[in-house]
Parts: sequence; structure tokens; C-alpha cells
Amino acid sequence: MGSPVLIEKALKIRDASIDSVLPGVTLPDPLPQNVQGIPDTILNPEELQITGYDTLQLVKKLASRELSCESVTKAFLKRAALAQKTVNCITELLPEHAIKRAKYLDSLPHPTGPLHGLPISIKEQFGFEGKINNNAFVVNCDRQQIPACTLNTVLEDHCGAIIFARTCQPQSVMHLETNNNIYGRTVNPYNRKLTAGGSSGGEGALVGFRGSPLGMGGDIGGSIRVPAANCGIYGFKPTPFRVGNPGGMGLIVGQEGIIGCIGPLAPSLSGIELFMKAYLGTEPWIKESYLTPLPWRQIQLPKKLKIGVMWSDGIVKPHPPITRALSLLVNSLKSNPAFEIVDWEPIDHDKCWDITCALYWEDGGRRLQEVLRSGDEEPLELTKWLLEQPTMKPRTLEEVWALKAARNSYRAMYNQHWLNTGREDSHPVDAILSPVGPGCAPPHDQSKYWNYTSQWNLLEYPSISFPVTKVDSSLDVRDSSYRPISKADEFNHGLYPGPEAYEDAPVSLQLITRRYEDEKCIEILKQIEAATHDLRN
Amino acid sequence: MGSPVLIEKALKIRDASIDSVLPGVTLPDPLPQNVQGIPDTILNPEELQITGYDTLQLVKKLASRELSCESVTKAFLKRAALAQKTVNCITELLPEHAIKRAKYLDSLPHPTGPLHGLPISIKEQFGFEGKINNNAFVVNCDRQQIPACTLNTVLEDHCGAIIFARTCQPQSVMHLETNNNIYGRTVNPYNRKLTAGGSSGGEGALVGFRGSPLGMGGDIGGSIRVPAANCGIYGFKPTPFRVGNPGGMGLIVGQEGIIGCIGPLAPSLSGIELFMKAYLGTEPWIKESYLTPLPWRQIQLPKKLKIGVMWSDGIVKPHPPITRALSLLVNSLKSNPAFEIVDWEPIDHDKCWDITCALYWEDGGRRLQEVLRSGDEEPLELTKWLLEQPTMKPRTLEEVWALKAARNSYRAMYNQHWLNTGREDSHPVDAILSPVGPGCAPPHDQSKYWNYTSQWNLLEYPSISFPVTKVDSSLDVRDSSYRPISKADEFNHGLYPGPEAYEDAPVSLQLITRRYEDEKCIEILKQIEAATHDLRN
Repeated sequence: MGSPVLIEKALKIRDASIDSVLPGVTLPDPLPQNVQGIPDTILNPEELQITGYDTLQLVKKLASRELSCESVTKAFLKRAALAQKTVNCITELLPEHAIKRAKYLDSLPHPTGPLHGLPISIKEQFGFEGKINNNAFVVNCDRQQIPACTLNTVLEDHCGAIIFARTCQPQSVMHLETNNNIYGRTVNPYNRKLTAGGSSGGEGALVGFRGSPLGMGGDIGGSIRVPAANCGIYGFKPTPFRVGNPGGMGLIVGQEGIIGCIGPLAPSLSGIELFMKAYLGTEPWIKESYLTPLPWRQIQLPKKLKIGVMWSDGIVKPHPPITRALSLLVNSLKSNPAFEIVDWEPIDHDKCWDITCALYWEDGGRRLQEVLRSGDEEPLELTKWLLEQPTMKPRTLEEVWALKAARNSYRAMYNQHWLNTGREDSHPVDAILSPVGPGCAPPHDQSKYWNYTSQWNLLEYPSISFPVTKVDSSLDVRDSSYRPISKADEFNHGLYPGPEAYEDAPVSLQLITRRYEDEKCIEILKQIEAATHDLRN
Repeated sequence: MGSPVLIEKALKIRDASIDSVLPGVTLPDPLPQNVQGIPDTILNPEELQITGYDTLQLVKKLASRELSCESVTKAFLKRAALAQKTVNCITELLPEHAIKRAKYLDSLPHPTGPLHGLPISIKEQFGFEGKINNNAFVVNCDRQQIPACTLNTVLEDHCGAIIFARTCQPQSVMHLETNNNIYGRTVNPYNRKLTAGGSSGGEGALVGFRGSPLGMGGDIGGSIRVPAANCGIYGFKPTPFRVGNPGGMGLIVGQEGIIGCIGPLAPSLSGIELFMKAYLGTEPWIKESYLTPLPWRQIQLPKKLKIGVMWSDGIVKPHPPITRALSLLVNSLKSNPAFEIVDWEPIDHDKCWDITCALYWEDGGRRLQEVLRSGDEEPLELTKWLLEQPTMKPRTLEEVWALKAARNSYRAMYNQHWLNTGREDSHPVDAILSPVGPGCAPPHDQSKYWNYTSQWNLLEYPSISFPVTKVDSSLDVRDSSYRPISKADEFNHGLYPGPEAYEDAPVSLQLITRRYEDEKCIEILKQIEAATHDLRN
């Protein structure tokens, strides 16, 4: 499905870039379910060591020149090529560009920028000067990138990084999985039967496989946090307008009901903070005047942190591993005098989804269907599901105004709800601890519940997903007393026959703070991680 | 025109409030052209002294309790009632509320808040709890204010101010004059043949008459800056989302292409800064989470200020008094080593207007016409003019998306244009000095050129209008060498038969800085005023 000529063109570019980095490697056939052991059998000790470093360690070793940019770039190129061969997450490696740039950086008398020599992978959608920018639509497979990508400029010219890989996203870039008619499906490196998540699923899988020390994704409904959660890494969605839009073209330019956010995926929390500091340190708002001119601020946390725990959103109950992970943290924090734990009451999260979904597709999906048709491609399973949503209908201008008014009212209501948690002690909740989704990475084509993440997109609250544990076959047994609370809940329950379906799957949680409290979000997670270090894998 | 019952209801409320404050006063009949001398003949010396203080002086005397809140409130109520009788700027005084509150504040052991006891007037549109909120439409003349107005809450409960008057705005709240079918026309206190400006024209006239020491207006195309300029006071339009929206209802909720801004009008620059500091000092973004959490920042200006002077926008040339005021400042600053003066090149300001005007009326004015029809009222002269604009046409969703995309491109282009002014010396222009409009306050129904102010609304640049001088009959002679550069220019030229048509009219200019550089805008104007103090009246 989809013009074979165009698809072939894209695959040829991808395959050539992979072959130039990792020619003639022999892999097990069939591949094992969990491919995380494969690098040990293919990469040499130096490559394993380099790609095993935490992002912050790597930046330090590059800055001190203990490691050369070239060696680091080549190691990640190789591991990323291996990721492609095992989980199908790459649209194109950029060896020529990256190695040339690495050599240039190595030739400088001093390191340049806070990310000197750090290889960074980017979602294909963001574009790359001089390259095709297909945005996961077949029709675009011969579309040259037109505007320069400002994010790339900041990362390379201002921060000293090296962009070395472009990664997969789903058809429409609006699934919480990654599958499209050009490159096919991206799978989870811990369990190929499960999804890597989406829409920044190429990044999730690549960083989760340690094929990149830092990835750039986009998130308008969970598209950074979900793949990060599914693949056992960290994914941060900042407040809108703190990180600049890339130069690539989205499906609909000028639709502004819910603002998409750009943010980092990294194997560690320090990697996330490293990016935010480095990026905002360049004062990107000078060149991109739509950004809010807020540097990364040093903040003082309250002595005692008040954490609101959302066990369920009241619509879809999370699977046992998620509830266990929440209990694990909550039990530990409850006995810690530096934390106060209260329950978070979700209010009208279903209403929030209805507004959000309608604002994603003001035109009821007309533009999406046109683009699919013009590339002669069929909607995939999750695109069909999207198009069947009850909010998918054509709208008048006046209906769109009413939606935005409803969105604004919902935001005001929810803000007051948050402030009300401080009514008795003048200390509103500092952060919400919540699931990232109603389960671990689902089997393919089943990611049909966005609310645990999209809720914070409409509200524009910063939120981060982080790994807590792994699915445990003895602890995460199916809930035999289950009674459905909604149709969506019943569907979700059906996705959990038992822990055996989620072998090796990472279990992640999400931390949420108020609008523009990005720094606070990261700082509180540091405190939580420090306080629960012994508990987590 | 318009339901007489509804109109009568509104006028009765207004007249009762005026009569309770200033019963049985005899004024010259007919009124003189310039009514600024009238207070001297009606108010007592204490009232004249109080209403003659600068805003900052007043706040100091109120805080030190040299003046009681009650005496100050009563003096301004009286002068505001006199303003109503001479320039027709009030929809309703609030003597009962204001005096009760003044007495309460006087009874407190200590002053409360940074604006303790300061009387503040507000544009009717913003609403007032328990009062009718007609928004200048006849149909609304029995519409009770529904939501509490958050701006009022901040001003009174957090800052300690006293809201004592509500002021006129034009039909549609989208004229640069003030005239509607309920209250009629607001005129200029310096020259009743000229307009007070609009849409915050009630505020312009009232503060210009010294009937209020601080007024709150709204500005989506010049509606604070133009009336302030016309009436010889200061008017500041901040960056959007620094000052919160009021609780009143606009015509179209959910239309967000150009964001309206709330801001202060005051007789002095220090009055403007006083408000911004007091307001932002309350951290309004906590309760109004759509606001940007930026306090009023202390900033360091460059040692030498680089000012770009826009003599004309290339579409409509300003009248002689405006060009003379610009020359006055420029000649003085040019000889001052603390300033570097360069020309500002306006780029595509006509294109900017086309996008802006279309985004004001995404529906081509359909909603506006419905509201007029439902109140059985006719469009006034300037409403008709609006409805005849070529951009006034119904639009599809896709056309609105395209407009927003064009707006974003224009913003990016203009930002780069600004940065380019520093290409040679790494010092881009710090501020633009420009006309506020292509002339002083025009005769009634002639304010048909918005670009000098609306330009900065689309761009979201903070800008302030400030008085420089008065029209001078000997200096401001008509340009005999005039050749039209556009149709709009020809129309504007026709509005200037000579200085005699603008007797006593204030001549104001505008200072503009980059997005979110609100503090810088105020600081630079301080420097300019200090450097040119001798020149100005």
C-alpha cells in the first residue's frame, strides 16, 4: 500500500546509511523476543563501554577529551545500526555528516558548547537540512526539507552536539505506537511482541537500546513520555514554548488548540536535565521569538514535599504492574518524613480527552485523509481507530471557538482544583505521581488510551516519565476480582491476560507539576529517586 | 436605533450614579471646545489638589495616611462625574462600593497592598460583580455579570485599590474611537471636536481629564495606546499573558489569532510602572495559570541605547505635528552620547494589517452582525467601515489555519529583521521610536488607520504611547509638497487641512521593544524622557 516507487526511495536511503556503518553482520534468526543482549555479541568492548556510559558521564569524558568525538560517534552509529536491525527504529543514519562533524570538533583546540561531541538522534519529523522530510507519509517521500531546522542549529552550532540519526514515527504521527507504510513497525527492544510506543517510538526504541545517548522527540498527547516509559528510559515533556519547534513540517500548520512540545529522551534523569540546561542556556528565545524567555531556573523545593498520587483516572484502571510500581514508591515515601503523600482526585478526565481529541482534529481528520489518499496509502489500524473517534467530525469555525472556550474553562477549573489541595494547610500538592498509561508497553496495535498523558498536554503541565521496575511474573498476577468501570476499562483489562504477556517489560511512572514548573518537576523526581533508590532496579 | 427600553435602563443606571456624586451643577452652555479648564470652576481647592497629584505621589500620600482613602475617592468621583458631563466617558460610577471600601481601608490599622486606597477606573467590558456587563452592545443591557472578574480581585483584594468608575467603549469594542448606541460619543477633553480615541476611549478621556489616577484598558490593535495618545497621557500595552484577562465577556471567546492585552493608562510613566510592579507582585499566574510566571524584572540597559526611528510605515505618512515631535526627540537624542539613532525600516506593514484584520474577524463579522441584529441596532459609521474591509469575508477552518501560518511566518521574518539591525555591530536596536498613529486625535468617525499600533499586536511586542508636545499653529503647517503614496495616505492627508483643526491637541509618540521586553520598554522611555526633559511641555 502506498506508491511503491516512493517507499522504495525512502528504504534505499535508510538501508544505504545502515550498510555503510554495519555491513554484513549475522544475527540470530529468528531474533529473540528480548534483543537487549545482542549488542554484547556484536560490538567490541570499547564500543560497549562507550555506549554504556550515562549521558552526563559521556559529556564529561568528551569535554575532558578522554574520549574523542569520533570514537563516540562511531560507536553510537554502530549500535544504532544494530538497533535498526533488531527493532526497526531508524529512518536514516547520518554517518557522513556525523563523522565529518566529529572530526571537526576533535580538531578544535577547545571543546565547544555544553554538549560538545555528544551524538544526538532526532525524530524524522523534525527535518534535516538537505534531506527528505517525509513525516511518515508516503506522499512526502520525495519532499526535500525546506526551512532550516532551528532545533538542529541550536543543538549543533550552539551546544556542540552531533546529530547522527533520524528515527521512526507512526503514520499521522498521532499514534502511541510506531508503524507506518514506509518503514513498517518499530518494536520494543525488551520484548519484540510489544510496542516501542509512539509517536517518538523510534527514539524510545533507539535510546532504550542504548543506540543513542540523547534523543529529541515531540509530544502532543504522550508521544515522548509513552515511548520512554515503554522502553525503560526517561522522557520529558516541558511546558509549551520552552523548547523551540523544529523546522520540519507537521500535518496541519496553524491549528493551535493543543500545542505540541519538543523534549528529550535519555537513559537517565541527569541526561534530561543536561539537555534542558544546555538548550535554554543558549537563550533560544532570541532567535525564536515565540518562545518564553525563561532560563533554566534554580529553584528551592519546600522542606516537605506534598505528592498527590493518582492511582487511577477513574476511567481506566491500570494493570497490576503499574499499581505495584506506584505502591512501591508510595510505601517507601510514606515512611519518609521529607514527603507527605495524599491521594490525587482526577476530575473529568474523560471530558478533557473529548476536548483534546477534537482539538487535534478540528476538521474531523479531513486533511489527514487527503494526505493518505494523495500518497495512495491505506490508514493503518490505529489511524482507523483515530478516524472512528466520536469527536472526529467536520466543524464550523464557531464550533472550534466553542471548543477553545471549553478548553480554557477546563484549564481554569483544574488549576483551582490543584490550588484547593492546599486549602487546609496552605500547601497545595507539589507534584502528581501517576501512571504513564494504563499498562506497560501493550502488544501491537492496542495503544488506544491516551488520557494518562494527554491530560497534561491540554493543561500544559510539564511531566516526565521514568522507569521504576520490570514486570514480575510472580507479583503481577491478574486481578481476579476485576469489575469493569467503563468500556475503555474493559478493553484495557482484556490486554492483561497475565504477566507472561509482558515478559521483561519496563514499568514506568509519571511525575507532573504545574504549568511552567519544569525545573520543579525534575528536582522533585531527583528527590523521589534518591529516597527510593534501594527499591528500584 | 436599538431597543429603547434596554438603552434607557443603562442610561438610568449611569445617570443615577452621576447625580448622586455631583447633583445640580451648572456648566457653560454650550461647552467650550477645550474643557480642561472646567474643573477649576467647579471643584474645591482640596479636590483640585488631590486630583492634581501624580499617581505615584497619591499612592505615597495614601500609604503614609497624609490623605484618607475616603477624601481621595470622593474627589475622584466628583471629577469623574464632571468628566461625564463634559466628555461623556462614564457608563457607571460606583460611589456606594467605592466609598464603603474607602472607609473600610481607612479603618484598618495599617495600609494594605501596594495600591492602598488608590481609585482605579476600569473599562466597562471588564465587568464588575453584580453589575450589568453590556460590552457596548444594546442587546446586553440587561446582562448581569456572571463570572467574578479576576482583575478586579487582584486590584482590590491583593493590591488594596478601590474600583470607582466604569468607562465607555465603542460599538464592537473594535474602533479606535468611542461611540455606541447606548451612551453615545466620548469626546476629547482637549478639543471636543476630536475623538478621545478608542476602544478604551472612556479611560483615555477620564484619565486625560484627571478624573482617574489610573485606568485599566484593553488593547488588541491600539485600544490602550491610541486613546492615551489622543488624550495626552501614557498608555502601555504589555506582552500578551503578562496581565490577566478580566472576567467580562468579549464578543468572541475562543478566537485566538491575535491576543488582546490588558494594560494601564496613567497621567505619568511612573503611574504605568507602579501598576505593573504592583500587579505582577501579586504573582497573578498562580490563580490564572494561563499567565506567564514572570515577575517585573530589574534590568540592566546597555550603556549606549540604540534607537530605531520609524518616520513613516511606508503606507501612510504622519501629519506634521507627529513628524515634528519625532524630530524634536531625535535631534536631541542625536547629540546625546548615551544614544545612537538609526532609521527603522518598516517591512510589509500592509501585509501585517491584512493578516491582523482577518484574524480579528475569522468569520468575516458574522457574529458581530448577529449581536447587532439581536439588539435591533444599526452599525455605526466605524462599524460599517470595519465590515467593508476587504478581509471581512467568511472563512473555512483551513483558511484560518493558513492565516495563522502566515502570521507565524511574519513574526519570524520580523524578528530576524530586528536582529539584523545588529549585524554589523552585534548590537540590535534596543527600541523603536514611532508614531502612535498617522496624526493627533482625528475628528470624529475618521480613525481608519490602525497599522501604527496593530503592527505590534500581531508581533506581541510591548509598546507604550507617551505625550511629547501639543499642536502648534505656527510650526505644524500643512505640507504643500505632499504627494500621496497610497489611497490610505491620501485619506489621511485630507484629515489635515492645517493645525487649526487640531487646536490644543496633544502630540504623542510610541516606544516599542521586543516580545517580553516590557521592563526594557519602560526603562528606555525613562531614559529618553530624562534626556529630553527640557524639550517637552
